[in-house]
Amino acid sequence: MQRAVVLLSGGLDSATTLAMAINAGYVCYALSIDYGQRQRAELDAATRIAIMLQVVEHRIIHLDLGAMGGSALTDPDVAVPTVPSVGIPVTYVPARNTVLLALALGWAEVLKIKHIFVGVNAVDYSGYPDCRPDFIRAFENLANVATKAGVEGTRFEIHAPLLHLSKGEIIHHGVSLGLDYSLTVSCYQADPQGRACGCCDACRLRRQGFIDARIVDPTCYVE
Amino acid sequence: MQRAVVLLSGGLDSATTLAMAINAGYVCYALSIDYGQRQRAELDAATRIAIMLQVVEHRIIHLDLGAMGGSALTDPDVAVPTVPSVGIPVTYVPARNTVLLALALGWAEVLKIKHIFVGVNAVDYSGYPDCRPDFIRAFENLANVATKAGVEGTRFEIHAPLLHLSKGEIIHHGVSLGLDYSLTVSCYQADPQGRACGCCDACRLRRQGFIDARIVDPTCYVE
Repeated sequence: MQRAVVLLSGGLDSATTLAMAINAGYVCYALSIDYGQRQRAELDAATRIAIMLQVVEHRIIHLDLGAMGGSALTDPDVAVPTVPSVGIPVTYVPARNTVLLALALGWAEVLKIKHIFVGVNAVDYSGYPDCRPDFIRAFENLANVATKAGVEGTRFEIHAPLLHLSKGEIIHHGVSLGLDYSLTVSCYQADPQGRACGCCDACRLRRQGFIDARIVDPTCYVE
Repeated sequence: MQRAVVLLSGGLDSATTLAMAINAGYVCYALSIDYGQRQRAELDAATRIAIMLQVVEHRIIHLDLGAMGGSALTDPDVAVPTVPSVGIPVTYVPARNTVLLALALGWAEVLKIKHIFVGVNAVDYSGYPDCRPDFIRAFENLANVATKAGVEGTRFEIHAPLLHLSKGEIIHHGVSLGLDYSLTVSCYQADPQGRACGCCDACRLRRQGFIDARIVDPTCYVE
């Protein structure tokens, strides 16, 4: 049995990625990073999903990314936009996926695992640079020179199975695997109960995804 | 004036790197990561050095890398070796420099800074894979595809001025720049007062460096 570390935020994309990794036969270890994100409900969702999908282990690593500022997701002084953004939005967390993948790489190395799954998506995404194929390739290249395991012959593989899927296709995949999306939280400013605002970029992409997939949206919205 | 983010652990190498960056005319922002390392005295040293060298800002980011285990530096169940190691030693922290540089990259992006300095060294080093030129090049490549700034045209530069210097040469550089090495802590298991054990890999490399440089070693050892 192949084993994999799967980055699990608690959102729709990472939950689908985990379901796909399990369906592909991987024994999964889920990693969530508590990086001081606004939406604490997302981490609760990650825990629910990890339990529901029966991962071997779910680890949460604390990282005070808020100390760095610069993003609406970690800096309380920067508001989450409720109208579509032009260009890369203020919800972009500088170097976030680099940091998350670096931590996943470290844990994978400790566990002697060479497969890492991440739910980045280059189609219906928010315009973040670290959600593109070039980024995944560059990180995979880095992983193999950065680690003891890489030097000793392990070839790390970064799997991004959602990379070329639309949000609607992602939802289709998840539903076909039996994933219950009511467990997931995508909203950038969900309330403590996990209810979504319905108007941030993440909510808009998610809502449109369910419409495109012609699947009833199980998301609980505040309005 | 060019600005730079400098990773500052509090050890001999990073302190020298900071002194070299300042000497090269950079206005410096020092970043230390409290990653649950054994040697807490190292972080106190980083604070002293940041003050002494008058950086614009010294930021400490907390990251619970100990939750990951797998290294003598973060896992209390793994002892620091006191005899020379064969191969990559247990003090190797999986993906550490990848994580540290990712955080430096994030902060640099927030500050709109494109120069990042890191004190890795490929000569008298402990055999860590993430202290090699290949690693630095791979990270620089990643930085420019991973970030909003990179996408918008910034070319991040990762400076590793110690890369090809011996420990003796590093010490010569630092002393010529007026750096007081008694402020720095290299030991993997320094006591709370910052006194070095004298027998771990880091102590051995440092001791030999002062001997090679023919400079009196100002390190305070416990024995």
